[in-house]
Amino acid sequence: MVIKVGIVGGTGYTGVELLRLLVRHPDVRIAAITSRKEAGTPVAQMFPSLRGFVDLEFQDPASSALADCELVFFATPNGVAMTEARALVQAGVRVIDLAADFRLRDVATWEKWYRMPHAAPELVAEAVYGLPEVNRARIAQARVVANPGCYPTAMQLGFLPLVESAAVDVGHLIADAKSGVSGAGRKAEMNTLFCEAADNFSAYGVGGHRHLPETLQGLQAVSRSPVGLVFVPHLTPMIRGIHATLYARITRELDFQQLYTERYAREAFVDVMPPGAHPDTRSVRGSNTCRIAVHRPRDGDTLVVLSVIDNLTKGAAGQAVQNMNIMFGFEETAGLKDAALVP
Amino acid sequence: MVIKVGIVGGTGYTGVELLRLLVRHPDVRIAAITSRKEAGTPVAQMFPSLRGFVDLEFQDPASSALADCELVFFATPNGVAMTEARALVQAGVRVIDLAADFRLRDVATWEKWYRMPHAAPELVAEAVYGLPEVNRARIAQARVVANPGCYPTAMQLGFLPLVESAAVDVGHLIADAKSGVSGAGRKAEMNTLFCEAADNFSAYGVGGHRHLPETLQGLQAVSRSPVGLVFVPHLTPMIRGIHATLYARITRELDFQQLYTERYAREAFVDVMPPGAHPDTRSVRGSNTCRIAVHRPRDGDTLVVLSVIDNLTKGAAGQAVQNMNIMFGFEETAGLKDAALVP
Amino acid sequence: MVIKVGIVGGTGYTGVELLRLLVRHPDVRIAAITSRKEAGTPVAQMFPSLRGFVDLEFQDPASSALADCELVFFATPNGVAMTEARALVQAGVRVIDLAADFRLRDVATWEKWYRMPHAAPELVAEAVYGLPEVNRARIAQARVVANPGCYPTAMQLGFLPLVESAAVDVGHLIADAKSGVSGAGRKAEMNTLFCEAADNFSAYGVGGHRHLPETLQGLQAVSRSPVGLVFVPHLTPMIRGIHATLYARITRELDFQQLYTERYAREAFVDVMPPGAHPDTRSVRGSNTCRIAVHRPRDGDTLVVLSVIDNLTKGAAGQAVQNMNIMFGFEETAGLKDAALVP
Amino acid sequence: MVIKVGIVGGTGYTGVELLRLLVRHPDVRIAAITSRKEAGTPVAQMFPSLRGFVDLEFQDPASSALADCELVFFATPNGVAMTEARALVQAGVRVIDLAADFRLRDVATWEKWYRMPHAAPELVAEAVYGLPEVNRARIAQARVVANPGCYPTAMQLGFLPLVESAAVDVGHLIADAKSGVSGAGRKAEMNTLFCEAADNFSAYGVGGHRHLPETLQGLQAVSRSPVGLVFVPHLTPMIRGIHATLYARITRELDFQQLYTERYAREAFVDVMPPGAHPDTRSVRGSNTCRIAVHRPRDGDTLVVLSVIDNLTKGAAGQAVQNMNIMFGFEETAGLKDAALVP
Repeated sequence: MVIKVGIVGGTGYTGVELLRLLVRHPDVRIAAITSRKEAGTPVAQMFPSLRGFVDLEFQDPASSALADCELVFFATPNGVAMTEARALVQAGVRVIDLAADFRLRDVATWEKWYRMPHAAPELVAEAVYGLPEVNRARIAQARVVANPGCYPTAMQLGFLPLVESAAVDVGHLIADAKSGVSGAGRKAEMNTLFCEAADNFSAYGVGGHRHLPETLQGLQAVSRSPVGLVFVPHLTPMIRGIHATLYARITRELDFQQLYTERYAREAFVDVMPPGAHPDTRSVRGSNTCRIAVHRPRDGDTLVVLSVIDNLTKGAAGQAVQNMNIMFGFEETAGLKDAALVP
Repeated sequence: MVIKVGIVGGTGYTGVELLRLLVRHPDVRIAAITSRKEAGTPVAQMFPSLRGFVDLEFQDPASSALADCELVFFATPNGVAMTEARALVQAGVRVIDLAADFRLRDVATWEKWYRMPHAAPELVAEAVYGLPEVNRARIAQARVVANPGCYPTAMQLGFLPLVESAAVDVGHLIADAKSGVSGAGRKAEMNTLFCEAADNFSAYGVGGHRHLPETLQGLQAVSRSPVGLVFVPHLTPMIRGIHATLYARITRELDFQQLYTERYAREAFVDVMPPGAHPDTRSVRGSNTCRIAVHRPRDGDTLVVLSVIDNLTKGAAGQAVQNMNIMFGFEETAGLKDAALVP
Repeated sequence: MVIKVGIVGGTGYTGVELLRLLVRHPDVRIAAITSRKEAGTPVAQMFPSLRGFVDLEFQDPASSALADCELVFFATPNGVAMTEARALVQAGVRVIDLAADFRLRDVATWEKWYRMPHAAPELVAEAVYGLPEVNRARIAQARVVANPGCYPTAMQLGFLPLVESAAVDVGHLIADAKSGVSGAGRKAEMNTLFCEAADNFSAYGVGGHRHLPETLQGLQAVSRSPVGLVFVPHLTPMIRGIHATLYARITRELDFQQLYTERYAREAFVDVMPPGAHPDTRSVRGSNTCRIAVHRPRDGDTLVVLSVIDNLTKGAAGQAVQNMNIMFGFEETAGLKDAALVP
Repeated sequence: MVIKVGIVGGTGYTGVELLRLLVRHPDVRIAAITSRKEAGTPVAQMFPSLRGFVDLEFQDPASSALADCELVFFATPNGVAMTEARALVQAGVRVIDLAADFRLRDVATWEKWYRMPHAAPELVAEAVYGLPEVNRARIAQARVVANPGCYPTAMQLGFLPLVESAAVDVGHLIADAKSGVSGAGRKAEMNTLFCEAADNFSAYGVGGHRHLPETLQGLQAVSRSPVGLVFVPHLTPMIRGIHATLYARITRELDFQQLYTERYAREAFVDVMPPGAHPDTRSVRGSNTCRIAVHRPRDGDTLVVLSVIDNLTKGAAGQAVQNMNIMFGFEETAGLKDAALVP
């Protein structure tokens, strides 16, 4: 079976990554891609890397055939999917939103962090949070999947075994996370100019970042006690990649290496590395893998977990394809089998 | 048919790129990979990006099963293949050398530029220069293929239509070429340290570079008059990619855009872009494509051709896989179908 | 004597570089800096690197004390200085424009390339082109100095000895130039985002670039025969630096190394390197020096000149300070004495 | 008074940075620079950025006039200064070691972390740890100054006010630190090649890093209770800069912003930024400043302190010059007055 998929948006970095992955997917045909602003522009003109792979033009959303698709991806800014998904869902189209519209189950919390009223609370209620390592069965049945954020993916996969096992002080977790610049999206903004971001390093949003409530929600769902998290994001001068360095105070002795190995033994896209390893972000560049290493420095009472992903792949488009595979009964790794691009 | 291939060397950048391409190739099984220095080390330990893709260890060349392979790639420094290929060829194994040992037909010239005596002149005599856009038929029959250098690939593909058509002053060609740092290989040397190469740009080897005689040989072979070339290589602070900016004085009026379009109309891996385009190296990152644009600034008498490749793919491992496909009758694009990684 | 200087604009990269150089200049006090958009913002809030060095706020141009200054720098987009300089000049203030408004002596040519009518042709007539190595005496007397562009500085300093000596075919010069991204200015534009420009290389503006007529004008002024130039600019993934690779066909035998050495023997900011050298851009990072090397590959008939500058220093703000020093009789190297920042 | 200084070593990154700072210092004349390996090589040939600034050649240590200097800097690998400093000290020469030989007061601890026997324990006993913000008075009198490491400088300056005030749980400090690649020195090693380090991010040495005992020693000296520290260093793809993100659990309420402001009110090289700031490493590129910002995310019980330095300046050569200024009664900021190079 080959399904027809549509993409709303698609002029950003998650969009071009989604296209890169979908054009080689054996079970998919891209039927339409929309962009109000770029209607009429050939996709391959905007992204010459797709010359010979994508013959479509961006279409105006109004005139497009999205409703004929089995699945529509929203690779749009926050606030778009919530206004457009309902009609598609009612027409029988399943939806994966790569933005944040359906990620937070509590609408009030969402409205506070995203600073707009929510247009489709009923879809929030039915949406499934698309982290396969937690919600695989529900994703398979979902009409609406909220594809996780990039930081939350790296942080949750890194913290999950600890929180599930209640072996650390879950009230005082610390996540020091570093992201490549593509995490900021393809927008003409001053602070992500080459000359601002290159050869430079800084924290940002220490006071509060939208990925904090999302991560807390995910960890709280598997925790027996209240989760507290200090999350400090940083911008690092590379294109792709997230490196989350996670700190937790041990409250109960366990073989932590074994804990992680067993937790992810059957996960195709989580690679628990041997003791002593330091995963680097390039080892997952362009791949859907999350690599994790578990350290206990100097046998102290603090555990350090290193978790790396490609923010555009496992942190966005790749995870969306993984979710699609689960939703439509394809092999879960279909279209996602390549090794990372190194060097 | 699935063939068994072996790799000699493979601890460098062309080696890891070759592995990345071969593990997804439908017609290939990697039977052995050798490294004297790293014998016993799991490949995926050296290159964690290959965890789950390559289970082999590096083997000592002596103990390896190279002679059982249908094809052996040499991803070794210059001077290795010429000493080891003969035995394999005599055992019926076909060989693709990614280094320079068999590239120059004139052994004396080779010995001058590479500063060592040649150990296998008779293999030079039978070796086929592996630029499929010129030598496809002969590659198909070859026992020994000399895989072209990275600069020579970008320069020859860029100059070929001009030289073949004799429409420019072939005695005074200029190639101003810029390479990413991976072109220097994976060697612990001072000048390719991050802190030497980053945020920096310089020319090198203006007095003479080994890729000059190789390129001259290729262009001369299709030219009716003596070819002269000034070639200035530069190091640019990026990992992959070559951008060759080629200059030629027009001696005969032609529709140059059409000349290029027709010359490469049937080539799967040469993309002639529309007039006015400026191909960027990232548009071929990790892909086997050479993108070319033809300019005639201000309608003057000088033609400017822009030619970009990924030095590790079309400039090395990808072209080697393309040659393998031709040699064994596989689809020429097998294993090489992915879009470039952008951003 | 300490002079009062004002800066119009100053929120861009040439502005912050000018501030960096002026705060350490022994003969200068910065009296005012204006920005309509940022009026009221402390300079050091926008540029924390200047905390402790600059206590000024950006002022609205209307309310500022520019007319009380001895000198005003325009670090503004093209088209601003031509509308605001006249009043200052009439008030006895000398002006250095770091933009292009007064660079081209032919107003019609300027209007064609810059696509706007010129507002002050009479200032064009009196303005002096601020390349000290050519116009030092006239700069000393000038009321209005047109500070050269970055590419034109690198190209002219590289070509001047050849054109002055008429030893090459000046009708067919080629300049293959590579610029760091800061040359594009501090503007929120898509193509200079980190994720567009990093790990990437491309040519741009092959059809025509505004620095072409400026360079032609400068070379023509010292040439006995008509100058022709093919100029291909490229964007390279670094912050600062221009590397111009210049090609010229030899028409008369000379000791070219000696030609350059003698031409620049008394120039404080032009460093002719020994034969065989390959100057790298970082060797002038943050310094006002232009380094030049002269090559004649394989003793052929083509000369290759390598010319590097920091586009923000010798290519903009540093040269402006050098011009100021000449205009006011300061030591020519005042404020410009530091070694480059390496690594 | 102008003093004569010598430099032992000086072919590395701290060496060239030291030269850059010393050539503009008003009170210093560089009398000799030694390198066994590079004896006879002009300094400016190795570092063209110093052409016109340094006329010296590297000398063999044996033949050099170090004993005639008032001060000798050791910019050598660990283990050199401890064998060569004694003779100089006995000859009345004062010494600043930029390596680690005299940093740890406990010789046994030093020998464990640095894996060699210590050759001069008696110099350890008299050496002063050269962090001016703690030891200014003792530095002024010292014959031997142990210049602090880069990470320890960033971490100690960031933690000091908290530890001195005993307002946090000093037994459980966390330092997540990120360093530019120049921190690894100018050595031909694989892991700091451009193609390994660019576009990549990873932790390293999570199990233990030599800068841990040094930092613990410094913090313990000002603490009333036992200090515990988890220190995770990371490599980030930039040339210069350290960003330390420091976490501490609050145990006593204080106005932490005020605490920092007052602690560093009289320090020329520590800049406490306003509340809410995120200092970036480029804001100190090439400058001797440490910028600090204090955050308390979501008014919780965890304090987050951001501390940035240039690892080669305040983290090495700049701090060495600052120490020299203190030792010889020069203005403390002499030679260190420039603003950072931005962009």
